[in-house]
Amino acid sequence: MRIVLDAMGSDTCPEPEVAAAVEAARLFGEEIILVGPAEELKARLQSTGTNSASVRLVDATDTISMSDKGMALALKAKRRNSKTSMAVGIDLLKSGEADAFVTAGNTGGAMATAYFRLETIPGVERAGLTATFPVKNGLCIVLDIGANPDCKPEHIVQFAIMGSVYANKTRAIEKPRVAILSNAEEAGKGNELVRDTFPLLVKSGLNFIGNVEGKELFAGEVDVVVTDGFTGNVLLKSTEAVAKFIMDIMKEQLKSNLISMIGGALAKPSLTKIKAMLNPDEYGAAPLLGVNGLVFIAHGRSNAHALVSAIKAARASVEANLLGSIQSAIQDSIQKSQLEVLV
Amino acid sequence: MRIVLDAMGSDTCPEPEVAAAVEAARLFGEEIILVGPAEELKARLQSTGTNSASVRLVDATDTISMSDKGMALALKAKRRNSKTSMAVGIDLLKSGEADAFVTAGNTGGAMATAYFRLETIPGVERAGLTATFPVKNGLCIVLDIGANPDCKPEHIVQFAIMGSVYANKTRAIEKPRVAILSNAEEAGKGNELVRDTFPLLVKSGLNFIGNVEGKELFAGEVDVVVTDGFTGNVLLKSTEAVAKFIMDIMKEQLKSNLISMIGGALAKPSLTKIKAMLNPDEYGAAPLLGVNGLVFIAHGRSNAHALVSAIKAARASVEANLLGSIQSAIQDSIQKSQLEVLV
Repeated sequence: MRIVLDAMGSDTCPEPEVAAAVEAARLFGEEIILVGPAEELKARLQSTGTNSASVRLVDATDTISMSDKGMALALKAKRRNSKTSMAVGIDLLKSGEADAFVTAGNTGGAMATAYFRLETIPGVERAGLTATFPVKNGLCIVLDIGANPDCKPEHIVQFAIMGSVYANKTRAIEKPRVAILSNAEEAGKGNELVRDTFPLLVKSGLNFIGNVEGKELFAGEVDVVVTDGFTGNVLLKSTEAVAKFIMDIMKEQLKSNLISMIGGALAKPSLTKIKAMLNPDEYGAAPLLGVNGLVFIAHGRSNAHALVSAIKAARASVEANLLGSIQSAIQDSIQKSQLEVLV
Repeated sequence: MRIVLDAMGSDTCPEPEVAAAVEAARLFGEEIILVGPAEELKARLQSTGTNSASVRLVDATDTISMSDKGMALALKAKRRNSKTSMAVGIDLLKSGEADAFVTAGNTGGAMATAYFRLETIPGVERAGLTATFPVKNGLCIVLDIGANPDCKPEHIVQFAIMGSVYANKTRAIEKPRVAILSNAEEAGKGNELVRDTFPLLVKSGLNFIGNVEGKELFAGEVDVVVTDGFTGNVLLKSTEAVAKFIMDIMKEQLKSNLISMIGGALAKPSLTKIKAMLNPDEYGAAPLLGVNGLVFIAHGRSNAHALVSAIKAARASVEANLLGSIQSAIQDSIQKSQLEVLV
């Protein structure tokens, strides 16, 4: 198994990437391919002093930065001879030289590069970006959290199929409970998109449990929640923001008087544990499901530890044959709907 | 000033309503009209033992319950001779016998009753339900949080006008900062609805600051956030759910060992304060902006204290002439757009 790590992704790259590549190669005993400016990376690798024989360097002279956008970004993503670390890394997937690609770089850049160079899995109309939410007694996969601000019902159904396969393959849930995010639990409630998608999910063959609200999501009553990329992005960012808001006022309040300060100090290990639970980095990276290759996107703030988690998540997906399983599930659903048209 | 309180709204009605009516009449020196089964209310009022001269009872023999929905609910809301406490109470607004209506009952029932009996303010296409979010160093008004799952750009612009007037009149903010909720801060980003609404908000004459995400909302960088009722509802419920999730795991973690338990006990006043900050009841009730009368909807879980806060919010809106100000602002915006067509 060979996993490609974009050396030029994270906010403080390439330092965390070099450290993560060395650590992951040691930990998992797999070859890690580090893509970026080879000379610089070589020097950094040597300075780690560790035996980095299983970290292979592939040269990429250009990068996509966090500020790249619009047409300039599209060109960097699309051009055949693009030398960005993302383009070079993803080309290694396409040529079969590697099994998964991990980056902590510009999300839009990674999506565009993956779309242009790998295209979508045959039959998939839109790739969906996933996020893994910490919830009561477990985790919940949500997609799309931003790749497609406007969706059609058919896109949402494909997100549901792909999310269900992902939960099944990487978290060993036999029949993942799938739900659609709505403004009310009752069937028939929702906006036009939800109302139109609901009946398609009912007959999808998935373990579809209906509409859910934030309440059920965070109570751990569902394994996969599907929604359009606009609503999913609002969900992700607003819940992250409110969690930060609460932790901030807690910090402030615990400093407000001596007794609270002592209490806060005593409770600190517990509070730190909560912070870790709420930290998305703990859950590795999120795959872009639907492109024809395994592409994982980690947070820009990722440190070496978070990148090792990301590589671990990518590795588990390769081992579970996530890509092949999604390809099959999509083909099955297409055949099923063709049969329905015939009958 | 006369404020109507629906006696049959809250989950444990009418006990909190009776207590709140007595307390609000005492506190504010205004007449409170309590609407519900008069005999029962009279007996309860007398048993409070207080001088309840300024609580007037108006008889209503029927109720809208939390389980009422669909056509049955629509009929209760619409029928001319409906005797639900909501219909009787809102009719008092229409006839000019009262200035504001407060209920902790079924939100859909209150919206439907208000729509059918008061109709919308001339020129307003859709009424929007507001929520007041606790944010860093203050509050943020968000609408629509559920009245209209599907919206057109024109509806969102009217929400912005009404929300801006509301923030201006009741929170004394001279030029409220208005933003639209989106999946990215940059102008031009968003789903189709956001992209179509953006230019209308730019030329609305409001203090429009552009797109915001949850980050800016909870950082207190904006006074009014507009969105469609589907996204607003997801925002409200998911942030409530994540706040509950965090407080729950905190409680659990603080019980996990003796040291943390002692820490938690010492920090308890601070933690209680945080819980209160996150409690929407503290911020009274949220108005349904756009119907032709002042209708305030409080949480079903409201106790007497929360209902007094709700009455206080209604009172402040009457004093500030919120309804008249919204009527004028809507007329101004219509005249402005008519002029634009002529020019």
